[in-house]
Amino acid sequence: MQDLKIAVVGATGMVGQEFIKILKQRNIPAKNLRLLASARSAGSIVYYGSNEITVEETTPSAFNGINIALFSAGGDVSRYYAPLAVKAGATVIDNSSAWRMDPEVPLVIPEVNAADLEQHNGIIANPNCSTIQMLMALAPLHRINPVKRIIVSTYQSVSGAGGKAVFELQTQSRQVLDGQSVNPHVFPHQIAFNVLPHIDVFLDNGFTKEEMKMVNETHKMLHDYSIIVTATCARVPVLNGHSESITVEFYESMPADEARGILTMVKGVKVLDDPTINVYPQPWSATGSDDTFVGRIRQDLSQPNCINMWVVADNIRKGAALNAIQIAETLAANDWVKAKGVR
Amino acid sequence: MQDLKIAVVGATGMVGQEFIKILKQRNIPAKNLRLLASARSAGSIVYYGSNEITVEETTPSAFNGINIALFSAGGDVSRYYAPLAVKAGATVIDNSSAWRMDPEVPLVIPEVNAADLEQHNGIIANPNCSTIQMLMALAPLHRINPVKRIIVSTYQSVSGAGGKAVFELQTQSRQVLDGQSVNPHVFPHQIAFNVLPHIDVFLDNGFTKEEMKMVNETHKMLHDYSIIVTATCARVPVLNGHSESITVEFYESMPADEARGILTMVKGVKVLDDPTINVYPQPWSATGSDDTFVGRIRQDLSQPNCINMWVVADNIRKGAALNAIQIAETLAANDWVKAKGVR
Repeated sequence: MQDLKIAVVGATGMVGQEFIKILKQRNIPAKNLRLLASARSAGSIVYYGSNEITVEETTPSAFNGINIALFSAGGDVSRYYAPLAVKAGATVIDNSSAWRMDPEVPLVIPEVNAADLEQHNGIIANPNCSTIQMLMALAPLHRINPVKRIIVSTYQSVSGAGGKAVFELQTQSRQVLDGQSVNPHVFPHQIAFNVLPHIDVFLDNGFTKEEMKMVNETHKMLHDYSIIVTATCARVPVLNGHSESITVEFYESMPADEARGILTMVKGVKVLDDPTINVYPQPWSATGSDDTFVGRIRQDLSQPNCINMWVVADNIRKGAALNAIQIAETLAANDWVKAKGVR
Repeated sequence: MQDLKIAVVGATGMVGQEFIKILKQRNIPAKNLRLLASARSAGSIVYYGSNEITVEETTPSAFNGINIALFSAGGDVSRYYAPLAVKAGATVIDNSSAWRMDPEVPLVIPEVNAADLEQHNGIIANPNCSTIQMLMALAPLHRINPVKRIIVSTYQSVSGAGGKAVFELQTQSRQVLDGQSVNPHVFPHQIAFNVLPHIDVFLDNGFTKEEMKMVNETHKMLHDYSIIVTATCARVPVLNGHSESITVEFYESMPADEARGILTMVKGVKVLDDPTINVYPQPWSATGSDDTFVGRIRQDLSQPNCINMWVVADNIRKGAALNAIQIAETLAANDWVKAKGVR
């Protein structure tokens, strides 16, 4: 990774900032980093350790000489610039939902389906935050005892909706505490001290796009379209960190102790499951961690093949920036960073 | 109801205050009201319209002449004083969990199983808030097409844990916004901008007592012990109003439209289900309402007998005080307020 030239597209956004933080932790030299954003943000300065890096405008030529381009600037930017970046010789790892369902594009959680990366054609999609943490917990179990059905209800933080959403929750929280009325902008209704069963847009089947991402991305990454997935995605007044209540049915019996034992061995998963001393995953304490936390693992009453669990992760980190950088590291380690565009 | 002498036990608590508010809305005359609390709160003044009522200490003799005693002062107070109140001639409606599973004690949501009240022996139990709103939505469907399995994840507000819990959320929220550290007292961990998958105590089976209430109370009220209920109860940083994500399986097919049609006709239920214009139930807007709100009604993918829904209610109102008063009104209307103790 140290020798690769890396571009961050959307460098001033929440995920962009997390990219930069993680790249610094990885000791990527400043000279190998190019920070890109919209014309509006171009010219602003980002501190990278003791270096100041000037944010440049995203243009087709900005990708010249870049080996890996990490995109997190929304679907429209990805749709337009990802093919141009590939043409310029970069391998794109995209955080938007634009390319996820393209059959030519691998959708990857390195701990789950790293092998799918090998056949990439220049663009690799990073999954949705909610799907990443769910599959971090379920894929290791699925390998041993195939999953038949998943019923998941999410408790998603506002950071997934960007910096403006974090500011809106903070602002509205103060307003409610001070007895003032609130004025929603980012969310359709008040988010402070409220819960909205609504993330992304509604589809004709009554589910939201966010809920269907959990269905479709699970199928694609586990290579099993027979798994029944039902999701309810809700936004809760939490700044960062998504929680999920998951009921999972396997084809064979899966005692809670067995599931706990399997998950304890998985890299990237941390089991926090000792209710007698109030130990269980929480979004506040998961923030800043690389791990996906799993707890409340228990046998579903009267359903021998079913267990329930509570899964929490930092949605900006493992749910977005970290996972994308892990994809880049997997590509680099396997010599899969192939220039697909430049001949 | 107007002629009955009513005692409120726990008059200074959150549910107690809601009792008083609803009794005032029902035009119960001040002279028929006796407000009781612990020795510590005795002597304090409660405003009841233009009347000032002095709170008295709860003692065995305080129930003399009382027809209906509404208890909401915790399990210990109910266990001790409810039999004494019955002996003094009162009919007790108890909000604690102390008597709910007693086979001699009816557990009642008037819209669901009012007939169970007829055979009461002086004590009637008010169900747990989470169970009330779930069965308000499910019982009308169950009557037409029996329920086979329920999987529910809750998003419960702090008011269910009392006034101190509301204060703790408010205080911690300000502290977090001001960058200060928090110091949990009521909850085992920070509740501001966090989610705790932990309500009431943990049991040996890995479920909490709160989760098992949803199982056991559903069985008792629907008179059907074959229904499989799996609950995950979580506390969210919401001041008031519980939300529930429910997946329900019926024995026969239940199209979402049919469920919506049935629920639209039910008294006490309000269907809020128009995602195209962002209409769905929310705890903030449900607060202060008598109704249980149901939305996001949709067919479970690939499961013809399953639907998903999102159910919200004011947990202090329909989840506690209102339901208890509706029990009292049902008793009064049917002449079921029988003095069981005095011969």
